[in-house]
This record gives sequence, C-alpha cells and structure tokens, in this order.
Amino acid sequence: MADWYEERFRDVLSVGLRLTGRVFEGRSPFQRVEIVDTALWGRALVLDGIFQTAEREEFFYHEMLVHPAMTTAPSVRRVLVIGGGDGGTVREVLRHREVEQVVMIEIDPMVVEACQRHLTSIGTAWDDPRLDLRIADGVRYVQETDEPPFDVVILDVTDPVGPGEGLFDEAFYRGVARVLSPQGVFAAQTESAILMPEVFSAIERVLGTVFTRVHPYFGCTPIYGAGHWTWTYATNGADPMAIDAARLGRIEDGCRYYNGEVHAAAFAQPQFIRQLLDPSAGR
Amino acid sequence: MADWYEERFRDVLSVGLRLTGRVFEGRSPFQRVEIVDTALWGRALVLDGIFQTAEREEFFYHEMLVHPAMTTAPSVRRVLVIGGGDGGTVREVLRHREVEQVVMIEIDPMVVEACQRHLTSIGTAWDDPRLDLRIADGVRYVQETDEPPFDVVILDVTDPVGPGEGLFDEAFYRGVARVLSPQGVFAAQTESAILMPEVFSAIERVLGTVFTRVHPYFGCTPIYGAGHWTWTYATNGADPMAIDAARLGRIEDGCRYYNGEVHAAAFAQPQFIRQLLDPSAGR
Repeated sequence: MADWYEERFRDVLSVGLRLTGRVFEGRSPFQRVEIVDTALWGRALVLDGIFQTAEREEFFYHEMLVHPAMTTAPSVRRVLVIGGGDGGTVREVLRHREVEQVVMIEIDPMVVEACQRHLTSIGTAWDDPRLDLRIADGVRYVQETDEPPFDVVILDVTDPVGPGEGLFDEAFYRGVARVLSPQGVFAAQTESAILMPEVFSAIERVLGTVFTRVHPYFGCTPIYGAGHWTWTYATNGADPMAIDAARLGRIEDGCRYYNGEVHAAAFAQPQFIRQLLDPSAGR
Repeated sequence: MADWYEERFRDVLSVGLRLTGRVFEGRSPFQRVEIVDTALWGRALVLDGIFQTAEREEFFYHEMLVHPAMTTAPSVRRVLVIGGGDGGTVREVLRHREVEQVVMIEIDPMVVEACQRHLTSIGTAWDDPRLDLRIADGVRYVQETDEPPFDVVILDVTDPVGPGEGLFDEAFYRGVARVLSPQGVFAAQTESAILMPEVFSAIERVLGTVFTRVHPYFGCTPIYGAGHWTWTYATNGADPMAIDAARLGRIEDGCRYYNGEVHAAAFAQPQFIRQLLDPSAGR
C-alpha cells in the first residue's frame, strides 16, 4: 500500500503527495516538525501538517522572497532574516557577495536542526562565516535590539497561525521599520490572495501605515494549495524597479525562476488584486 | 460524512475538493463527464476524473487563453475556437465587439449540453448570434475546411491524452496554420511546464516548425495541480506586444485577472523555462 501525506486547507481543499519515505518526526514547543520524501517534489519539510518547502520546487518561493529586495536595495551589507529555518532563504541571500553579515532569527531550534541534518540540498549555506544564526523570538528581537540597522529585512515564516501569529501585525512591522536603515527594504511572504484574500488585504493595509511604499508582487508556489502566491516589498526609500545590474548579473545564472524580466513582471497586478486593494476600482 | 472528489496526477500528486453536491454524471463516447459543486471553487466540470474548470477560478485560465491573442491580432473579425465545451472561452472572445463570427468546434456534445444546462455562470454567451457552434472533430476541420481564413484560432482542450490527443501534433498545427490568415494569431493552452516539462517542450518545438514566432506565456491556474501554467502565442505576422489600446480598454474593466500590465508580464520567461527551451543556457 502506497504511503500518502495529505494536507488539508480549511476542510475544503486537500493536497496529497505520495511518499517514498518518512525521515524525521518530532514535536517542539512550537509545532509538529516532519521531514518526508515525496515522489513528486523530493524531500519536504512539513510543519503542523502543512507542506512548507521541498527540494524540487523550493526555488519558486525562495528566489522570489529574496532577490527582488536584494537586487534593488541601495545597500545589502547587513541583512536580517526572520524565520526561514529550512535555510533556503539565507542560502539565496548569501549568494550576493556584497553581503557582510546575515543575522537569522528562528524561533524553533528543532526546525533548524532537522533541516541541517536531513534537508541538506536546501540549506547549503549554514557554514558560511557571514551567517549569524540565533534561536530567538523575531517579534521581540526587532522591538528590543540595539544593533546597527539592517539594509534588508526578510520575513520567511509560516501562515499567521501558530508560531507565526505575531509576525503579521502592526507592532511587528513597526519593529521591522525600527531596525531597517532609512533606504532599507523589507520583503515578506504575504500569503495566497485567492485562498486568504482577507489576510492578504489586511497585511497590505497594515504595511501601508508603517511604510511609504508598499508593493505586493506575485508568482507561483507549486506546493502551496492554489498556486498563485504573494510577497510584498515595503520600503521608505528604495525603488523596487531600480535593479542593480551588476548584482543581478552575478546571481541570475544560478537562479531557476528569478531573473530581471521576471522581477519586473512579478509586480504586475492582476485585476482581482487591484480590486482587493481598492474595492472602488473595476467591477 | 463529507463527500470529497479527488483527482490524481500520475500516482504522485492528488488534489481533493470537498463537494457540496453532485450535479451531473454521464459517459460519452469520448469521456466521462461530471459536474460537481465544490465548497472552495463553486461548480466545476470534471472530465475523466480531472478537474477542468470551476466558477470561482475559471477566469485565470479563460482570460489568459483568450485576451493576449485578442488584444494583439491585427484583426479579430473571424475567430475559431477548438474545444472549450464549457463556454468560457467563447464568452471571453465575444466580449470583443469587433468579433463578427466565432466558429466553435467541440467534439463532445455531452460536455456542451451538460455545461449549457448546469454551468450557466461560465458559459454566458451561448445565445450570442455571432456564435456558430458545431459538434465536430477539430483536427479534421482544420485540415478539410474551405471556409475563409480566421484572424484568431484558439485551442482550448484537455491534456494530450483521450479526446485531446491529436491536438498536440504537427499535422494539427499545420492545419491551424492553413486556416489562419497571414497576420493571424494562434493561442493554445500548452500544459504545466513543471509537471509535464517534456510535453511543454515538445509542443514549443513542433510549433516552431510551423510558425515563425512562438512565444510561451505564463500564469496561474488554481484548479490545476502545480499552479504554474503555460499558454503559447504563435503567429507568422502579429506582434504579441502590440496591444490595441482601444480594444484592451473595452474589455479590461470586466476582467478579473488579465489587464495590460499582466499581458506584458505574462511573457517574461522564468529561468527554468529558458533552460527547458534552450538547454545550453544557464545551469
């Protein structure tokens, strides 16, 4: 009998992947952590029963979370990553050679340890000396730290339930603005605007109270239910269309989804997004 | 006990939707035809166990299949639609008021009849006097007809198995070129380049032997497994970036996905697509 892993969304949608193996299972104070081998997408991380990322499709998500900010921020010397326990986000950040330090704040050591041991094809930069990994609470960190400001802050967390809950509200975003340099860029995954339009709209609205420029952008994430995904670029000083050509040139060949054309294209807003963000527009 | 409908892809991926009702089931000489009510996406058409389209997500697919061709073809007076039994494609075509005639060739009358009766929110243009619906074989039609040429030809068929099988090979595409005006545009759904990269690549290659300009373009389709979807724009004379602004202006407000920005963005090729189409490029 084949072994399948099935994720359910709000008891209306299920996504099942056939497993070829179960690699790790543990329960941390924050969540249930599993690593499984799937026939379609390779080895995958599952948190509280929700697929997070998998070897053969993670590039869609990680490249789009990281590079729009990293190719356009005026400086990328100091980068803060909140979450991202699988290591894919810091791997992409560290491909930019101007990066001098990445502080990564992950709340759950079990995720990091399980991924460092079992998901080695995603987290390939754990040994980079520029990485400063700390197990801590990202919400408290951005509100309390007195370290120098960051040029880029990247939020790579699960859905706004469970351990990710405090990471989608105004107090957190004010903390992000507090640790960001004046020209800095904040990039975050901001959920599916199809499956969770109310969550997406709420995040955009709150970000708009903290940052002068808030630009959602769009792409696909095969392992997440409805395919269409959103990230958001927020800043008080940078220009999301001002790509540093040299920086882009150094990382583009190593990408599997992102490139300069995709960057510009990702910011095009479909009609239903325009209507969500401005209900008076369109039909 | 809740009723779920589960679709399986190659025994590695399953997508399940919770049903709130089962509306129609029949078996035609071509396929099993079902219409079901899903909790997430509303009423849906299922052929041979594969979700085809559903009320609340069909706009992603139909608008992207139709409008890139219809806003850029030098003329759109005569349009041929092959397949499209749910009626969504001809509905979008007929929103363009310059259209004088749409010939729609669908092989399976059971699909049309079931959709006309039960999927009325998708097929809203069946009574348009410009629509000439014929139950016939699209492969034979394009090879044998002596009717005047078409300005736009749109291929809206299922996967290249079952009744759609002959609609993905060179003989068919030569037939399309035969019925297309010299400046005409052919638009087709060309499958998932993630789940079926070999099918996508083969179609692009074959189209390149028949048309001088072949441009795949990309978007999302929530109901189809991996989210990321491809369509292809092929022509011997038109320019896919030369949008007729007046034509676009008349339909854009009524769209839920497509608009002028999305049009241009859709043609941006992700790195993995560039590498699929030219394996010597990138890594």
